Amino acid sequence: MEGRELQAPVKASRMVMVTRVESFSAAHQLHSNCLNAEENKRIYGKCNNPNGHGHNYKVEVTVRGEVNPLTGMVINITELKEHMQEAIIKPLDHKNLDKDVPYFTNVVRGTRAGTQMTSNRHPALPGWGSVDF
Amino acid sequence: MEGRELQAPVKASRMVMVTRVESFSAAHQLHSNCLNAEENKRIYGKCNNPNGHGHNYKVEVTVRGEVNPLTGMVINITELKEHMQEAIIKPLDHKNLDKDVPYFTNVVRGTRAGTQMTSNRHPALPGWGSVDF
Amino acid sequence: MEGRELQAPVKASRMVMVTRVESFSAAHQLHSNCLNAEENKRIYGKCNNPNGHGHNYKVEVTVRGEVNPLTGMVINITELKEHMQEAIIKPLDHKNLDKDVPYFTNVVRGTRAGTQMTSNRHPALPGWGSVDF
Amino acid sequence: MEGRELQAPVKASRMVMVTRVESFSAAHQLHSNCLNAEENKRIYGKCNNPNGHGHNYKVEVTVRGEVNPLTGMVINITELKEHMQEAIIKPLDHKNLDKDVPYFTNVVRGTRAGTQMTSNRHPALPGWGSVDF
Amino acid sequence: MEGRELQAPVKASRMVMVTRVESFSAAHQLHSNCLNAEENKRIYGKCNNPNGHGHNYKVEVTVRGEVNPLTGMVINITELKEHMQEAIIKPLDHKNLDKDVPYFTNVVRGTRAGTQMTSNRHPALPGWGSVDF
Amino acid sequence: MEGRELQAPVKASRMVMVTRVESFSAAHQLHSNCLNAEENKRIYGKCNNPNGHGHNYKVEVTVRGEVNPLTGMVINITELKEHMQEAIIKPLDHKNLDKDVPYFTNVVRGTRAGTQMTSNRHPALPGWGSVDF
Repeated sequence: MEGRELQAPVKASRMVMVTRVESFSAAHQLHSNCLNAEENKRIYGKCNNPNGHGHNYKVEVTVRGEVNPLTGMVINITELKEHMQEAIIKPLDHKNLDKDVPYFTNVVRGTRAGTQMTSNRHPALPGWGSVDF
Repeated sequence: MEGRELQAPVKASRMVMVTRVESFSAAHQLHSNCLNAEENKRIYGKCNNPNGHGHNYKVEVTVRGEVNPLTGMVINITELKEHMQEAIIKPLDHKNLDKDVPYFTNVVRGTRAGTQMTSNRHPALPGWGSVDF
Repeated sequence: MEGRELQAPVKASRMVMVTRVESFSAAHQLHSNCLNAEENKRIYGKCNNPNGHGHNYKVEVTVRGEVNPLTGMVINITELKEHMQEAIIKPLDHKNLDKDVPYFTNVVRGTRAGTQMTSNRHPALPGWGSVDF
Repeated sequence: MEGRELQAPVKASRMVMVTRVESFSAAHQLHSNCLNAEENKRIYGKCNNPNGHGHNYKVEVTVRGEVNPLTGMVINITELKEHMQEAIIKPLDHKNLDKDVPYFTNVVRGTRAGTQMTSNRHPALPGWGSVDF
Repeated sequence: MEGRELQAPVKASRMVMVTRVESFSAAHQLHSNCLNAEENKRIYGKCNNPNGHGHNYKVEVTVRGEVNPLTGMVINITELKEHMQEAIIKPLDHKNLDKDVPYFTNVVRGTRAGTQMTSNRHPALPGWGSVDF
Repeated sequence: MEGRELQAPVKASRMVMVTRVESFSAAHQLHSNCLNAEENKRIYGKCNNPNGHGHNYKVEVTVRGEVNPLTGMVINITELKEHMQEAIIKPLDHKNLDKDVPYFTNVVRGTRAGTQMTSNRHPALPGWGSVDF
């Protein structure tokens, strides 16, 4: 969407939020290396099952920005889908979050994916709106 | 619900179906021991990820039977919940279907849980309605 | 939808099922006059609460019939909505099923509405498709 | 999934149904060329709006067949998705059903897509299970 | 809800938000008159299909205000429904947003309805709570 | 979850919100003792039906707090479930809100449960996150 012809003659002043929802399926185990076996069992219960379990996850990404008066959009939701695919779905979908995803091996194992993702800023997102996930 | 006082004076003639939905979360891997590694990868794709993935599952159990004229019910759905807990949820919830559930170790590993459950008749269900799951 | 001009020149031969879903909200109490207080409490549990409780209900009505080649419809779903309003929603919505609905006062009180409705044939439905609810 | 190594040594005897749900978005207008303007307005109401309206549609395709004992599947749901993409989603998604889809120009215009699709057998589906949509 | 008898003796101090969800079905086309045909195709993709497509839309309207101590309500949700019918559903439901809705002919055609509605203040709403849509 | 071994060596600095959804079923009647019969009927309409009606309710409780670096959690959602059971579900589920719940007898009868619950702080919740419902 770059190019001279896409520059709006007048800067838009309306701020809008656009949310896209994608989903993925993954396995994980709630387990903290800072706790002993008994504590892990007591705190995480059935979620501490050694062989893991799994879920379907929904991820909502919200982009906030000014409406581009030329396109009427804050962000092209097709473009947003591609960013979400690259940054979230491909690395997490049909994976074992504890064993297959490097990001989670450096934090307390078993911390919920949805939580951890909040600090993973994606560098590919365009400048007029930034997304944390 | 047994006992003399619960015998209806007149046998009910209306057949009704009652469905209850429960859910569980589990990990699994689609993998067939009858196929080699390459075939497993080609057929199951990302579902063949060696470390597994997972889902939330919904299980619907339908009981068909005559309405008990004394209670107005085919089956007490609280009782049905207990049977589903015993026969489905406890053995499968927050488990790794391939590693933690003996039933699935004797079949083609990775065959979908929902499918395999259809032949697991639960002996505890009362006589006036039988349930396959 | 009656009238000469709506008679199709050739009888349609394809059978189709059309389902419409409506909803209503009502209070009720599970209670059988054939049982004593203790039995009612034991069998229906919290659903036997003397002051009642309530639910949102969904009602699905399926019409099966031949496609009218002139209109392409088995039944006009707007027309179906009106029949469901008349036969189901008006008498049940925002009512106490046990106290406000004559139909339920003649059966075991507390028998589930969804069940009881299955024998209530609505006389207003057109001849080419009949609906039981 | 063809090839000698995928032939099961023993024929499976269990019949299973697998359902996949896909969705598409399309515009249409309820309008019958067999009726005059007034009749069209009376029968279809707001759905007869000359400039059309639109919906999100859900399509369920159910495949019934014997379980392949080698793969544990009736049909690979990834393969089923491809067939649905080819036969349903590509020709209908983000289209005007009345103007962009040849199939619907030969029937009563405005007949619902969900209905019409029931007679469109897809030739690409494998032999052990056939799908009508 | 006007009238002397509805004035609460003591001003309520609790602020509450009430949200109502309604839905409508409409056709539209993503297209910007500021862009040429090739750019429109590149940016909007299948959403730029010349004959349009459509969706089911959900609209959430949130009213924030003090609880009226006499009625226990911020706004009567039946009244809110009427405002939403008048301001949103009637002008948009079963319409072609680009061709049938004057509001959208003065903005970039194809800009999403949900976005554009955010600046359409409805004059009929009562004074103690204002709604933007 | 108290105890020396659960004290993180370094205070966490990331604030996270965790939301849990539970549901209950209850009967109620919209009725204000400050209004006469005619006004009650006019304002609340069918919701003023003397014998009551009912709904399924969903309750969302959001806990905001710092992530405990030892457990990776703001609050154990199993623990949160217990608090919601004690403070919300047990007193309200399968009850008549007007007749069975003391909290509602001291406010305008018929005011919506969801609204009234916003000021009911639960004393059992731990100090690092407080919940209003």
